[in-house]
Amino acid sequence: MKNTYTKEFAPVELNNPVLIEGLPGLGLVGKIAIRHLIKQLKAKKFAYLYSPHFPYFVLVNKKGNVRLLRGAFYYVKDLAAKHDVILFTGDSQSQTIEGQYDIAEKMLTFAKKHNVDTIVTIGGYRMESTDKPKVIAAGTTQQILEQATNAGATVSTTGSPIVGTAGLILGLARFKQITALCLLGETRGYLPDPLSARSVIEVLKNMFNLNVDMAALDDEITKADKMVTRLQKIEETRALQAVETRKEEDKKTTYIS
Amino acid sequence: MKNTYTKEFAPVELNNPVLIEGLPGLGLVGKIAIRHLIKQLKAKKFAYLYSPHFPYFVLVNKKGNVRLLRGAFYYVKDLAAKHDVILFTGDSQSQTIEGQYDIAEKMLTFAKKHNVDTIVTIGGYRMESTDKPKVIAAGTTQQILEQATNAGATVSTTGSPIVGTAGLILGLARFKQITALCLLGETRGYLPDPLSARSVIEVLKNMFNLNVDMAALDDEITKADKMVTRLQKIEETRALQAVETRKEEDKKTTYIS
Amino acid sequence: MKNTYTKEFAPVELNNPVLIEGLPGLGLVGKIAIRHLIKQLKAKKFAYLYSPHFPYFVLVNKKGNVRLLRGAFYYVKDLAAKHDVILFTGDSQSQTIEGQYDIAEKMLTFAKKHNVDTIVTIGGYRMESTDKPKVIAAGTTQQILEQATNAGATVSTTGSPIVGTAGLILGLARFKQITALCLLGETRGYLPDPLSARSVIEVLKNMFNLNVDMAALDDEITKADKMVTRLQKIEETRALQAVETRKEEDKKTTYIS
Amino acid sequence: MKNTYTKEFAPVELNNPVLIEGLPGLGLVGKIAIRHLIKQLKAKKFAYLYSPHFPYFVLVNKKGNVRLLRGAFYYVKDLAAKHDVILFTGDSQSQTIEGQYDIAEKMLTFAKKHNVDTIVTIGGYRMESTDKPKVIAAGTTQQILEQATNAGATVSTTGSPIVGTAGLILGLARFKQITALCLLGETRGYLPDPLSARSVIEVLKNMFNLNVDMAALDDEITKADKMVTRLQKIEETRALQAVETRKEEDKKTTYIS
Repeated sequence: MKNTYTKEFAPVELNNPVLIEGLPGLGLVGKIAIRHLIKQLKAKKFAYLYSPHFPYFVLVNKKGNVRLLRGAFYYVKDLAAKHDVILFTGDSQSQTIEGQYDIAEKMLTFAKKHNVDTIVTIGGYRMESTDKPKVIAAGTTQQILEQATNAGATVSTTGSPIVGTAGLILGLARFKQITALCLLGETRGYLPDPLSARSVIEVLKNMFNLNVDMAALDDEITKADKMVTRLQKIEETRALQAVETRKEEDKKTTYIS
Repeated sequence: MKNTYTKEFAPVELNNPVLIEGLPGLGLVGKIAIRHLIKQLKAKKFAYLYSPHFPYFVLVNKKGNVRLLRGAFYYVKDLAAKHDVILFTGDSQSQTIEGQYDIAEKMLTFAKKHNVDTIVTIGGYRMESTDKPKVIAAGTTQQILEQATNAGATVSTTGSPIVGTAGLILGLARFKQITALCLLGETRGYLPDPLSARSVIEVLKNMFNLNVDMAALDDEITKADKMVTRLQKIEETRALQAVETRKEEDKKTTYIS
Repeated sequence: MKNTYTKEFAPVELNNPVLIEGLPGLGLVGKIAIRHLIKQLKAKKFAYLYSPHFPYFVLVNKKGNVRLLRGAFYYVKDLAAKHDVILFTGDSQSQTIEGQYDIAEKMLTFAKKHNVDTIVTIGGYRMESTDKPKVIAAGTTQQILEQATNAGATVSTTGSPIVGTAGLILGLARFKQITALCLLGETRGYLPDPLSARSVIEVLKNMFNLNVDMAALDDEITKADKMVTRLQKIEETRALQAVETRKEEDKKTTYIS
Repeated sequence: MKNTYTKEFAPVELNNPVLIEGLPGLGLVGKIAIRHLIKQLKAKKFAYLYSPHFPYFVLVNKKGNVRLLRGAFYYVKDLAAKHDVILFTGDSQSQTIEGQYDIAEKMLTFAKKHNVDTIVTIGGYRMESTDKPKVIAAGTTQQILEQATNAGATVSTTGSPIVGTAGLILGLARFKQITALCLLGETRGYLPDPLSARSVIEVLKNMFNLNVDMAALDDEITKADKMVTRLQKIEETRALQAVETRKEEDKKTTYIS
């Protein structure tokens, strides 16, 4: 395999589809959001994206079956919405600079082929937020940014760059006459963050009239909260022990002298 | 040289061959296993694989002769088995991500050309095992996995990724309609591990009715055991000396104060 | 996007143009100089350069609009000069070796297409200078070097290499029969250095009869000076505190003993 | 520039030429040897090799003139020898793995075009030798190895790999039906080592009846010796001072306690 390519294994006719992308990144916000949308909208897989720029290992499932790292495209039809929807997520981002540009470009070629006129990419935005993570929006047109803010997002005013596929798709979209929007959920980023993904999904629900149940995601959020609390306790204990150890060592030093 | 390529220097007609691959990796399990099979089955070299993704040095033999890093294909015919066998090993894995994908692909193209319908790749699996290393199997079909477990392997249920050529061959095999199996021998991984290679060969013997004598490998295992014991002693001595040195230094510190 | 390419969006007929290039580098000397020239000469943007060798992120402006990293070409016509002028700057240099050569080559192809016969590249030269930074010149012909020294530059006699696009353009220019000059402003390099950029612009003014007002740049210089003074104070305070902390610790050590 | 290429600027007809290569490497042995041969044999430059795999900077000479990094081919005709000679050296080795293979391949294509049937590459071999550095030989045929040993070289029996262009040319030479030999001068490697280069040149003189005066090289050797002695003194002084400083600190510690 010398080139990134997409492979469709089910013929699909889509009506005016929106493509929503979420690869692994900060807080796994994009991947968690897409995975939840796939489940709740009962989306069907119809294509893969393979690339020699992904890491060079394969995954093994619990039955011992092996597969390449890849991205996967899913579709949802007959929604009570104006748009059919294509959902995209995957195992990894590209490991090389040139691969990042190449994969973003191949996704746009795929989108164009399916008459996608709007792409939304999802990512995380590093922020020590407390209660409800905000959703930061950046886009290729003022119109799509207005739709996003009307749906609950906040326009990015910081000028922070957007790293990786979620960003490059926007950068390259204008060359294909595709409108693109990036939604970044605030997240601390070092642990999977379903709460941040929830904020992003709410914006998407409003924008595209998606009928998505949040219950399952709320369970994940509760679990993630418990995990964070547990890790914080471990960290506090560790810090206290470090202080104790130091005191002990100070005593010893005094004694030896 | 800009591309990976294979070069056959002896015309060979093979009957329904199985290809077994083992490149250097954890514990050198794959390379040791293939080297032993080549010797025991009196396999004959018939092709090389060259790549600009191998490290940029050449090897010198004891006569001062030089050669490129490469992979080599060997064949065995007229076995008391249903399959002829192609064996593959080499000096190194690819040094770049794209090279890893490229080399795995070129091996599959070679396999297809020789009507290989089953490939087995061999590697190591990091594990602090004690007595008899287990052999972990992952595969592209349930049937090949069953054959492997019937022959003594254990199906991987951990979901650990398989890194490098041994993994990518499996990932890419389905695009060529080739069945592929990966056998990973448990190994600590930091020293050549013929005991782990032995476990893998036993599974292969059972699967493909190979007539392989283990005596030579048992000698290697004894040597490797002695090496491990020696290294452990060196390490223990070093640790004891470190303790002594510290005591001496503590005394000095007391004296100075 | 697999290749570096330039894209013109406004048809322009230029008279015997000089191309002046300044990408981010040491002290941002090149970028600051070009930015100032663009503003003062009211240059108009007419083309972009895109490359998969730029870093893989996109920029977001204050309205939330997104764009790829890129280089941009501007032109100035009807100067009271013998030459029209093309100005080039951008967001970043290439992140890979091959990309560096590729981008320099693409810039020369662009220059050739527009009948450019002289290119000037701008960069920084690391030097702990005090008052007025000197401008070091290197070039592809003795004639252009003489013009540069007549305009106030000093010919490089140290044999220091010139790193990055500013250097490679010169190295590759002879294959396109284009004369090229590199002007390096002395700079400490670790902060944006408009004073160094000023020195370079003065040489350019003399060489090409450019009518450039320096007032705005002088404001930037004043600001940069204040920034340096502030940073030095912070550093001094930090150093003093470190000394104090050490004294305190020494006292403690004495006490414990 | 996307590809490595060679460019001839003087038409040359050579009689059965030998190509001798020496790029920068351990102790600069290869580069020093070739530079000396070029001067002593009054060889004439006739071609360059350029590559986007060289580092991305350009060199400036004392007149301020700029040039790309490159390799250069020189020729010597009408020697009292059976062979004309092509000499090759350059500024740098490739910075990427693939570039290393690419450049070695391009050199062989160039050699083939000029009917070269023997290539000798020169490098350094790390060794704490004392008096006269030995020359280690590795080759593609037993015949060339015998010629080398008859001329004073020692055949490599250690199986050490040969890294970089000097090695890869040998590895790739057999695909072009060119005989190749590598001569490695023993060197500590961390400083330019003309003494090691001298040993290599002596082997070459014997092998190809080259009429090379060594006087100039002996001057370089004397200078290099002085440099080594000076560096050793600096190092000894530094070590003594470190001991003194430690004693002083020990006293202080005692006092404080």
